[in-house]
Amino acid sequence: MAVIAILIDDMFEDVEYTTPAKAFREAGHSLVHLGLKKGAEVKGKKEGTVVAIDLETGSADPAAFDALFIPGGYSPDRLRAHKEPVVFARAFMETQKPLFLICHAPQLLISARVLEGRKLTGWKSVAVDIKNAGAEYIDAPVVIDGNMVSSRGPKDLPQFLNTCVEMLSKH
Amino acid sequence: MAVIAILIDDMFEDVEYTTPAKAFREAGHSLVHLGLKKGAEVKGKKEGTVVAIDLETGSADPAAFDALFIPGGYSPDRLRAHKEPVVFARAFMETQKPLFLICHAPQLLISARVLEGRKLTGWKSVAVDIKNAGAEYIDAPVVIDGNMVSSRGPKDLPQFLNTCVEMLSKH
Repeated sequence: MAVIAILIDDMFEDVEYTTPAKAFREAGHSLVHLGLKKGAEVKGKKEGTVVAIDLETGSADPAAFDALFIPGGYSPDRLRAHKEPVVFARAFMETQKPLFLICHAPQLLISARVLEGRKLTGWKSVAVDIKNAGAEYIDAPVVIDGNMVSSRGPKDLPQFLNTCVEMLSKH
Repeated sequence: MAVIAILIDDMFEDVEYTTPAKAFREAGHSLVHLGLKKGAEVKGKKEGTVVAIDLETGSADPAAFDALFIPGGYSPDRLRAHKEPVVFARAFMETQKPLFLICHAPQLLISARVLEGRKLTGWKSVAVDIKNAGAEYIDAPVVIDGNMVSSRGPKDLPQFLNTCVEMLSKH
């Protein structure tokens, strides 16, 4: 089964973490939470869901993980203000292993400058930033581009998770 | 004295509203709070500062105001998910009257597609989006480009407000 890295910080969209975490675990996968500080507890923006950071992003090796998942909310905006998560996201993108993005998650990849020529979706407020980064924004529940899966937000979670879990089962 | 429109929604950075509001009022200016719904109370993201919306953005006439101020935090991201604030910001930009931006405020102008060729600053996480929108990002406490004044965040408030109040005194 897969070891999935989750890049997360405070103000994440609770349901965009809790629902995928449950689905991935039920499918038999393991989760490793990467963040700015090992041992820190980060909180969701609506329900205050608490997530403990297992590993600092700066100490994480992309080769150690089979997939990367980035939940939305304002966590991606907070993460991209720091060098390490941006560097990790860029390095992981280069491995071409499964990468799962939802809502505001594309912001981190815009900062990593890896979206040029790619197709994806995301929360409507960041559509303009996705386009300005040289990518094609597609207004659909799920967009698959190679090993990159993206969705717009909480309403797309069922389709997003079906696609992600199916992709993981093939790796 | 000037009538200043303030475009604001939930999750604004408290101090980026409270400090400018105090400074503008002390300088004799009036404030009109524009938002998504008249009469709504919007709240700051850290201290829960409550601001009552005076007027819906969709009903506001840019000609009625002498200046526009957009506080930061996640308020600009929320506002730009709606058409009316984006349309208002674009129309106000065209009047060439004083426009004050701090922190994440440039996000709203990126969505309005009015930043190409302009010089500004903003919160470090949105620097890449500002550049991708065709503007020049300058890492300085205050950037003045015509009647547009921008700053990076809370630490720049003293210099930001000196510049804004001085500009208003000349109008």
